[in-house]
Amino acid sequence: MESRVRMALLYDFYGSLLTKRQQDFMELYFGEDLSLGEIAAEFNVSRQAVYDILNRAEAALQGYEQRLKLVDSFFTEKKRLRQLKQLVFKLQSTGLTQEQEKITAEIMALLDAMGPEGD
Amino acid sequence: MESRVRMALLYDFYGSLLTKRQQDFMELYFGEDLSLGEIAAEFNVSRQAVYDILNRAEAALQGYEQRLKLVDSFFTEKKRLRQLKQLVFKLQSTGLTQEQEKITAEIMALLDAMGPEGD
Repeated sequence: MESRVRMALLYDFYGSLLTKRQQDFMELYFGEDLSLGEIAAEFNVSRQAVYDILNRAEAALQGYEQRLKLVDSFFTEKKRLRQLKQLVFKLQSTGLTQEQEKITAEIMALLDAMGPEGD
Repeated sequence: MESRVRMALLYDFYGSLLTKRQQDFMELYFGEDLSLGEIAAEFNVSRQAVYDILNRAEAALQGYEQRLKLVDSFFTEKKRLRQLKQLVFKLQSTGLTQEQEKITAEIMALLDAMGPEGD
């Protein structure tokens, strides 16, 4: 299977497109960190059944990403937002008038609202 | 059926998730503006079959939007980008130093790269 981090990310974006059962198992396996055996016991199915469902879910998520590339775009946008914020900081350090400071503060607020944070 | 414009937009975002046949018919109907009868003749199927396939495709696209809301987010981001550009223009009209102008030009270039244009 792919890395847990990557899977969690794919699940964040496309989880809503999976079946209820796939969602349940993904959340327990990747979210709650339960083992295949633990999930099998909880749902009263075989370990193999859990494995198969998780495998199908993983393939579905990868298929969606291949077609829609939302995770890809997420990272591109995140990078651009970080660059934009750095440029606004740079601008703020050049000595702005009160009016200019007000405008850059508005710009920063909009950038903050646009999403993916941090690095 | 929903408006052609709305459908074309949904198809732009989620068309890659449809079957090949659904894609073919959607492109002819919404893209090339062919009638149901014309598509039926071209594929040697009944008019009803074309109608059913288009209907299922339309339902699928709406289902994807309901879950992923990409079209929704597209309009929100478009609006924010427009606001950001207006603020940068406003800033540029306040009388900037050469250094400040250089930074705002970089900001504008990044905003332009971030996508949805126009109003």
